[in-house]
Amino acid sequence: MLKVAFAGGSAGTWSVESIDAVVGAGLQAVGRLAVLEAEDRFPEPEGNWVLRGATSYERYVTAAERAALDAVSPPLGRTSSTNAALIPIRKSETWWAMPQDQRRAIFEERSHHISRSIPYLPRVARRLHHSRDLGEPFDFLTWFEFSRRDAAAFDELLAALRSTEEWRHVIREVEVRLTRLD
Amino acid sequence: MLKVAFAGGSAGTWSVESIDAVVGAGLQAVGRLAVLEAEDRFPEPEGNWVLRGATSYERYVTAAERAALDAVSPPLGRTSSTNAALIPIRKSETWWAMPQDQRRAIFEERSHHISRSIPYLPRVARRLHHSRDLGEPFDFLTWFEFSRRDAAAFDELLAALRSTEEWRHVIREVEVRLTRLD
Repeated sequence: MLKVAFAGGSAGTWSVESIDAVVGAGLQAVGRLAVLEAEDRFPEPEGNWVLRGATSYERYVTAAERAALDAVSPPLGRTSSTNAALIPIRKSETWWAMPQDQRRAIFEERSHHISRSIPYLPRVARRLHHSRDLGEPFDFLTWFEFSRRDAAAFDELLAALRSTEEWRHVIREVEVRLTRLD
Repeated sequence: MLKVAFAGGSAGTWSVESIDAVVGAGLQAVGRLAVLEAEDRFPEPEGNWVLRGATSYERYVTAAERAALDAVSPPLGRTSSTNAALIPIRKSETWWAMPQDQRRAIFEERSHHISRSIPYLPRVARRLHHSRDLGEPFDFLTWFEFSRRDAAAFDELLAALRSTEEWRHVIREVEVRLTRLD
Protein backbone atom coordinates (compact mmCIF):
# COMPACT_ATOMS: atom_id res chain seq x y z
CA MET A 1 0.00 0.00 0.00
CA LEU A 2 1.40 3.37 -1.05
CA LYS A 3 0.95 6.49 1.03
CA VAL A 4 0.72 9.38 -1.38
CA ALA A 5 0.71 13.17 -0.96
CA PHE A 6 -0.29 15.55 -3.74
CA ALA A 7 1.14 18.99 -3.05
CA GLY A 8 -0.08 22.03 -4.96
CA GLY A 9 2.41 24.90 -4.89
CA SER A 10 5.49 26.06 -6.74
CA ALA A 11 7.35 22.73 -6.89
CA GLY A 12 6.82 19.43 -8.65
CA THR A 13 7.13 17.83 -12.07
CA TRP A 14 3.59 18.64 -13.20
CA SER A 15 2.47 22.04 -14.48
CA VAL A 16 -1.07 22.96 -13.44
CA GLU A 17 -3.12 23.92 -16.51
CA SER A 18 -6.44 24.46 -14.73
CA ILE A 19 -8.26 23.88 -11.45
CA ASP A 20 -12.05 23.71 -11.80
CA ALA A 21 -14.53 23.46 -8.94
CA VAL A 22 -16.96 20.93 -10.47
CA VAL A 23 -19.14 20.60 -7.35
CA GLY A 24 -18.67 22.59 -4.13
CA ALA A 25 -15.54 24.46 -3.09
CA GLY A 26 -12.47 24.41 -5.34
CA LEU A 27 -8.79 24.48 -4.44
CA GLN A 28 -6.44 27.45 -4.42
CA ALA A 29 -4.77 28.23 -7.75
CA VAL A 30 -1.17 26.99 -7.93
CA GLY A 31 1.43 26.63 -10.67
CA ARG A 32 2.83 23.19 -9.95
CA LEU A 33 1.88 19.84 -8.49
CA ALA A 34 4.27 17.43 -6.76
CA VAL A 35 3.32 13.77 -6.27
CA LEU A 36 5.16 12.10 -3.39
CA GLU A 37 4.93 8.43 -2.51
CA ALA A 38 6.17 6.35 0.41
CA GLU A 39 5.69 2.84 1.75
CA ASP A 40 6.07 3.52 5.45
CA ARG A 41 4.52 6.87 6.37
CA PHE A 42 2.76 9.74 4.63
CA PRO A 43 5.14 12.23 3.03
CA GLU A 44 4.77 15.76 4.43
CA PRO A 45 5.66 18.08 1.57
CA GLU A 46 5.35 21.86 1.56
CA GLY A 47 2.56 23.34 -0.53
CA ASN A 48 -0.34 25.78 -0.69
CA TRP A 49 -2.45 22.67 -0.27
CA VAL A 50 -1.57 19.03 0.37
CA LEU A 51 -3.99 16.15 -0.21
CA ARG A 52 -3.20 12.69 1.11
CA GLY A 53 -4.48 9.24 0.25
CA ALA A 54 -3.55 5.55 0.44
CA THR A 55 -3.76 3.14 -2.48
CA SER A 56 -5.34 0.63 -0.08
CA TYR A 57 -7.55 -2.29 -1.16
CA GLU A 58 -10.58 -2.81 -3.43
CA ARG A 59 -13.93 -1.73 -2.00
CA TYR A 60 -16.29 -2.86 -4.81
CA VAL A 61 -14.37 -4.67 -7.56
CA THR A 62 -15.08 -8.41 -7.92
CA ALA A 63 -12.55 -11.05 -9.01
CA ALA A 64 -14.02 -11.12 -12.54
CA GLU A 65 -13.90 -7.33 -12.79
CA ARG A 66 -10.34 -7.26 -11.45
CA ALA A 67 -9.28 -9.74 -14.16
CA ALA A 68 -11.01 -7.66 -16.85
CA LEU A 69 -9.37 -4.47 -15.56
CA ASP A 70 -5.92 -6.05 -15.25
CA ALA A 71 -6.09 -7.23 -18.86
CA VAL A 72 -6.36 -3.66 -20.17
CA SER A 73 -5.00 -1.34 -17.45
CA PRO A 74 -1.77 0.39 -18.40
CA PRO A 75 0.90 1.41 -15.89
CA LEU A 76 1.49 4.95 -14.66
CA GLY A 77 4.63 6.69 -15.90
CA ARG A 78 4.42 5.91 -19.62
CA THR A 79 6.59 8.30 -21.61
CA SER A 80 3.54 9.03 -23.79
CA SER A 81 1.61 10.24 -20.74
CA THR A 82 2.26 13.95 -21.10
CA ASN A 83 -1.12 14.83 -19.59
CA ALA A 84 -2.63 14.05 -16.21
CA ALA A 85 -5.59 14.89 -14.03
CA LEU A 86 -6.08 14.80 -10.27
CA ILE A 87 -9.74 14.54 -9.32
CA PRO A 88 -10.48 14.79 -5.59
CA ILE A 89 -14.04 13.78 -4.66
CA ARG A 90 -16.15 13.77 -1.52
CA LYS A 91 -19.40 11.83 -1.27
CA SER A 92 -22.43 12.58 0.89
CA GLU A 93 -23.00 11.26 4.41
CA THR A 94 -26.07 9.48 2.97
CA TRP A 95 -23.76 7.54 0.66
CA TRP A 96 -21.44 6.50 3.47
CA ALA A 97 -24.31 5.50 5.75
CA MET A 98 -25.53 2.96 3.17
CA PRO A 99 -24.56 -0.67 3.71
CA GLN A 100 -22.02 -2.24 1.37
CA ASP A 101 -24.50 -3.97 -0.97
CA GLN A 102 -26.47 -0.76 -1.60
CA ARG A 103 -23.33 1.22 -2.42
CA ARG A 104 -22.10 -1.58 -4.68
CA ALA A 105 -25.47 -1.70 -6.51
CA ILE A 106 -25.34 2.03 -7.24
CA PHE A 107 -21.63 1.92 -8.14
CA GLU A 108 -21.73 -0.87 -10.70
CA GLU A 109 -25.14 -2.47 -11.29
CA ARG A 110 -26.83 0.93 -11.78
CA SER A 111 -24.01 3.35 -12.65
CA HIS A 112 -21.67 0.89 -14.43
CA HIS A 113 -18.60 2.64 -13.06
CA ILE A 114 -16.26 -0.20 -14.04
CA SER A 115 -17.90 -1.28 -17.30
CA ARG A 116 -18.18 2.33 -18.53
CA SER A 117 -14.49 2.89 -17.76
CA ILE A 118 -13.06 -0.21 -19.44
CA PRO A 119 -13.50 1.06 -23.05
CA TYR A 120 -11.19 3.98 -22.16
CA LEU A 121 -8.38 1.65 -21.15
CA PRO A 122 -5.54 1.33 -21.96
CA ARG A 123 -5.61 4.93 -23.21
CA VAL A 124 -6.14 6.25 -19.67
CA ALA A 125 -3.96 5.03 -16.78
CA ARG A 126 -5.52 5.42 -13.37
CA ARG A 127 -4.72 5.08 -9.66
CA LEU A 128 -7.22 5.50 -6.84
CA HIS A 129 -6.25 6.80 -3.41
CA HIS A 130 -8.51 6.47 -0.35
CA SER A 131 -8.63 9.44 2.00
CA ARG A 132 -11.84 9.15 4.01
CA ASP A 133 -10.47 7.30 7.04
CA LEU A 134 -7.61 9.81 7.26
CA GLY A 135 -9.98 12.68 8.08
CA GLU A 136 -9.03 14.43 4.84
CA PRO A 137 -11.35 16.97 3.14
CA PHE A 138 -11.92 14.53 0.26
CA ASP A 139 -12.84 10.82 0.33
CA PHE A 140 -10.94 9.84 -2.84
CA LEU A 141 -8.14 11.22 -4.95
CA THR A 142 -8.05 9.71 -8.41
CA TRP A 143 -4.99 10.23 -10.55
CA PHE A 144 -5.20 9.79 -14.33
CA GLU A 145 -2.46 9.84 -16.99
CA PHE A 146 -2.89 9.91 -20.77
CA SER A 147 -1.36 11.30 -23.94
CA ARG A 148 -2.29 14.69 -25.35
CA ARG A 149 -4.22 13.08 -28.19
CA ASP A 150 -6.26 10.95 -25.72
CA ALA A 151 -7.34 14.02 -23.71
CA ALA A 152 -10.69 14.14 -25.58
CA ALA A 153 -11.35 10.49 -24.71
CA PHE A 154 -10.60 11.28 -21.06
CA ASP A 155 -13.09 14.18 -21.16
CA GLU A 156 -15.68 11.77 -22.56
CA LEU A 157 -15.05 9.31 -19.70
CA LEU A 158 -15.46 12.09 -17.11
CA ALA A 159 -18.74 13.21 -18.70
CA ALA A 160 -20.04 9.62 -18.74
CA LEU A 161 -19.25 9.06 -15.05
CA ARG A 162 -20.69 12.43 -14.02
CA SER A 163 -24.01 11.53 -15.64
CA THR A 164 -24.50 8.48 -13.39
CA GLU A 165 -26.63 7.86 -10.31
CA GLU A 166 -23.41 7.36 -8.35
CA TRP A 167 -22.40 10.95 -9.05
CA ARG A 168 -25.59 12.32 -7.43
CA HIS A 169 -23.85 11.40 -4.17
CA VAL A 170 -20.78 13.51 -5.00
CA ILE A 171 -20.95 16.65 -2.87
CA ARG A 172 -17.51 18.04 -3.73
CA GLU A 173 -15.41 17.50 -6.83
CA VAL A 174 -12.41 19.40 -8.13
CA GLU A 175 -10.72 18.79 -11.48
CA VAL A 176 -7.02 19.59 -11.63
CA ARG A 177 -5.56 19.27 -15.15
CA LEU A 178 -1.84 18.94 -15.61
CA THR A 179 0.94 18.61 -18.16
CA ARG A 180 4.30 17.02 -17.51
CA LEU A 181 7.36 19.26 -17.28
CA ASP A 182 10.32 17.78 -19.09
CA MET B 1 -17.28 9.33 11.56
CA LEU B 2 -15.39 9.32 14.85
CA LYS B 3 -11.61 9.56 15.02
CA VAL B 4 -10.52 7.54 18.01
CA ALA B 5 -7.21 7.10 19.82
CA PHE B 6 -6.57 4.33 22.35
CA ALA B 7 -3.67 5.28 24.59
CA GLY B 8 -2.00 2.71 26.80
CA GLY B 9 -0.09 4.28 29.69
CA SER B 10 -0.75 5.55 33.18
CA ALA B 11 -3.93 7.57 32.46
CA GLY B 12 -7.48 6.75 31.47
CA THR B 13 -10.69 5.37 32.91
CA TRP B 14 -9.95 1.71 32.14
CA SER B 15 -7.65 -0.49 34.21
CA VAL B 16 -5.65 -2.97 32.14
CA GLU B 17 -6.13 -6.51 33.48
CA SER B 18 -4.08 -8.31 30.84
CA ILE B 19 -2.42 -7.89 27.45
CA ASP B 20 -2.01 -11.12 25.50
CA ALA B 21 -0.18 -11.53 22.21
CA VAL B 22 -2.59 -13.92 20.45
CA VAL B 23 -0.75 -13.90 17.11
CA GLY B 24 2.53 -12.08 16.43
CA ALA B 25 4.02 -9.28 18.51
CA GLY B 26 2.15 -8.02 21.56
CA LEU B 27 1.99 -4.55 23.08
CA GLN B 28 3.97 -3.13 25.98
CA ALA B 29 2.47 -3.76 29.43
CA VAL B 30 0.65 -0.70 30.81
CA GLY B 31 -1.64 -0.03 33.78
CA ARG B 32 -4.32 2.11 32.18
CA LEU B 33 -6.08 2.73 28.90
CA ALA B 34 -7.56 6.05 27.78
CA VAL B 35 -10.09 6.18 24.95
CA LEU B 36 -10.25 9.57 23.21
CA GLU B 37 -12.73 10.49 20.49
CA ALA B 38 -13.06 13.49 18.19
CA GLU B 39 -15.11 14.46 15.15
CA ASP B 40 -12.61 16.67 13.37
CA ARG B 41 -9.09 15.33 13.80
CA PHE B 42 -7.35 12.44 15.53
CA PRO B 43 -6.65 13.07 19.21
CA GLU B 44 -2.94 12.94 20.08
CA PRO B 45 -2.77 11.67 23.64
CA GLU B 46 0.36 10.75 25.55
CA GLY B 47 0.97 7.07 26.16
CA ASN B 48 3.44 4.19 26.03
CA TRP B 49 1.54 3.24 22.90
CA VAL B 50 -1.26 4.95 20.99
CA LEU B 51 -3.44 3.16 18.43
CA ARG B 52 -5.71 5.15 16.12
CA GLY B 53 -8.75 4.22 14.05
CA ALA B 54 -11.83 5.74 12.41
CA THR B 55 -15.35 4.36 12.82
CA SER B 56 -15.76 4.84 9.06
CA TYR B 57 -18.32 2.96 6.90
CA GLU B 58 -19.38 -0.67 6.40
CA ARG B 59 -17.07 -2.80 4.28
CA TYR B 60 -19.07 -6.07 4.14
CA VAL B 61 -22.41 -5.72 5.92
CA THR B 62 -25.52 -5.84 3.69
CA ALA B 63 -28.75 -3.92 4.31
CA ALA B 64 -30.45 -7.05 5.70
CA GLU B 65 -27.51 -7.76 8.01
CA ARG B 66 -27.41 -4.13 9.14
CA ALA B 67 -31.12 -4.33 10.07
CA ALA B 68 -30.54 -7.59 11.98
CA LEU B 69 -27.56 -6.09 13.81
CA ASP B 70 -29.35 -2.83 14.63
CA ALA B 71 -32.25 -4.76 16.15
CA VAL B 72 -30.00 -6.33 18.80
CA SER B 73 -26.90 -4.12 19.12
CA PRO B 74 -26.61 -2.31 22.43
CA PRO B 75 -24.94 1.08 22.87
CA LEU B 76 -21.52 1.61 24.38
CA GLY B 77 -21.36 3.18 27.81
CA ARG B 78 -23.98 1.08 29.61
CA THR B 79 -23.54 1.33 33.37
CA SER B 80 -23.54 -2.49 33.49
CA SER B 81 -20.51 -2.58 31.17
CA THR B 82 -17.81 -2.90 33.80
CA ASN B 83 -15.61 -4.98 31.49
CA ALA B 84 -14.12 -4.20 28.12
CA ALA B 85 -11.67 -5.55 25.58
CA LEU B 86 -9.61 -3.86 22.90
CA ILE B 87 -8.58 -6.28 20.15
CA PRO B 88 -6.22 -4.87 17.53
CA ILE B 89 -5.84 -7.06 14.45
CA ARG B 90 -3.72 -7.05 11.31
CA LYS B 91 -4.54 -9.22 8.31
CA SER B 92 -2.17 -10.63 5.69
CA GLU B 93 -1.22 -8.92 2.44
CA THR B 94 -2.86 -11.90 0.68
CA TRP B 95 -6.16 -10.97 2.33
CA TRP B 96 -5.93 -7.34 1.27
CA ALA B 97 -4.94 -8.23 -2.29
CA MET B 98 -8.19 -10.23 -2.74
CA PRO B 99 -11.04 -8.51 -4.55
CA GLN B 100 -14.08 -7.46 -2.56
CA ASP B 101 -16.29 -10.47 -3.38
CA GLN B 102 -13.62 -12.98 -2.29
CA ARG B 103 -13.06 -11.21 1.03
CA ARG B 104 -16.81 -10.97 1.59
CA ALA B 105 -17.26 -14.70 0.85
CA ILE B 106 -14.64 -15.65 3.42
CA PHE B 107 -15.94 -13.11 5.95
CA GLU B 108 -19.59 -14.13 5.99
CA GLU B 109 -20.56 -16.94 3.62
CA ARG B 110 -17.71 -19.18 4.86
CA SER B 111 -16.76 -17.79 8.30
CA HIS B 112 -20.19 -16.42 9.34
CA HIS B 113 -18.61 -13.48 11.11
CA ILE B 114 -21.92 -11.61 11.44
CA SER B 115 -24.25 -14.56 12.02
CA ARG B 116 -21.92 -16.10 14.63
CA SER B 117 -21.76 -12.77 16.47
CA ILE B 118 -25.49 -12.00 16.59
CA PRO B 119 -26.33 -14.57 19.32
CA TYR B 120 -23.91 -12.71 21.64
CA LEU B 121 -25.81 -9.46 21.25
CA PRO B 122 -27.07 -7.52 23.13
CA ARG B 123 -24.79 -8.91 25.85
CA VAL B 124 -21.69 -7.62 24.08
CA ALA B 125 -21.53 -4.02 22.77
CA ARG B 126 -19.05 -3.48 19.99
CA ARG B 127 -17.48 -0.73 17.90
CA LEU B 128 -15.12 -1.28 14.97
CA HIS B 129 -12.38 1.20 14.05
CA HIS B 130 -10.55 1.10 10.71
CA SER B 131 -6.82 1.77 10.81
CA ARG B 132 -5.34 0.33 7.64
CA ASP B 133 -5.47 3.44 5.44
CA LEU B 134 -3.85 5.46 8.23
CA GLY B 135 -0.62 3.47 8.01
CA GLU B 136 -1.12 2.15 11.53
CA PRO B 137 0.48 -1.11 12.76
CA PHE B 138 -2.98 -2.75 12.91
CA ASP B 139 -5.78 -2.82 10.32
CA PHE B 140 -8.67 -2.85 12.81
CA LEU B 141 -9.23 -1.98 16.44
CA THR B 142 -12.36 -3.56 17.84
CA TRP B 143 -13.71 -2.34 21.15
CA PHE B 144 -16.08 -4.52 23.17
CA GLU B 145 -18.02 -3.76 26.37
CA PHE B 146 -19.95 -6.22 28.56
CA SER B 147 -20.83 -6.95 32.15
CA ARG B 148 -18.66 -9.09 34.40
CA ARG B 149 -21.16 -11.95 34.25
CA ASP B 150 -21.12 -11.88 30.41
CA ALA B 151 -17.32 -12.18 30.25
CA ALA B 152 -17.59 -15.94 29.66
CA ALA B 153 -19.97 -15.37 26.73
CA PHE B 154 -17.48 -12.89 25.30
CA ASP B 155 -14.69 -15.49 25.60
CA GLU B 156 -16.90 -17.95 23.73
CA LEU B 157 -17.48 -15.42 20.92
CA LEU B 158 -13.73 -14.82 20.59
CA ALA B 159 -13.04 -18.56 20.41
CA ALA B 160 -15.73 -19.01 17.76
CA LEU B 161 -14.33 -16.22 15.55
CA ARG B 162 -10.75 -17.41 15.97
CA SER B 163 -11.72 -20.87 14.68
CA THR B 164 -12.89 -19.48 11.32
CA GLU B 165 -11.32 -19.43 7.86
CA GLU B 166 -11.27 -15.61 8.10
CA TRP B 167 -8.91 -15.81 11.08
CA ARG B 168 -6.31 -17.75 9.08
CA HIS B 169 -5.61 -14.37 7.46
CA VAL B 170 -4.94 -12.71 10.83
CA ILE B 171 -1.18 -12.21 11.12
CA ARG B 172 -1.19 -10.14 14.31
CA GLU B 173 -3.72 -10.03 17.12
CA VAL B 174 -3.46 -8.64 20.62
CA GLU B 175 -6.11 -9.02 23.32
CA VAL B 176 -6.26 -6.22 25.88
CA ARG B 177 -8.72 -6.93 28.73
CA LEU B 178 -9.96 -4.08 30.86
CA THR B 179 -12.17 -3.17 33.81
CA ARG B 180 -13.75 0.21 34.36
CA LEU B 181 -12.40 2.43 37.13
CA ASP B 182 -15.19 4.09 39.04
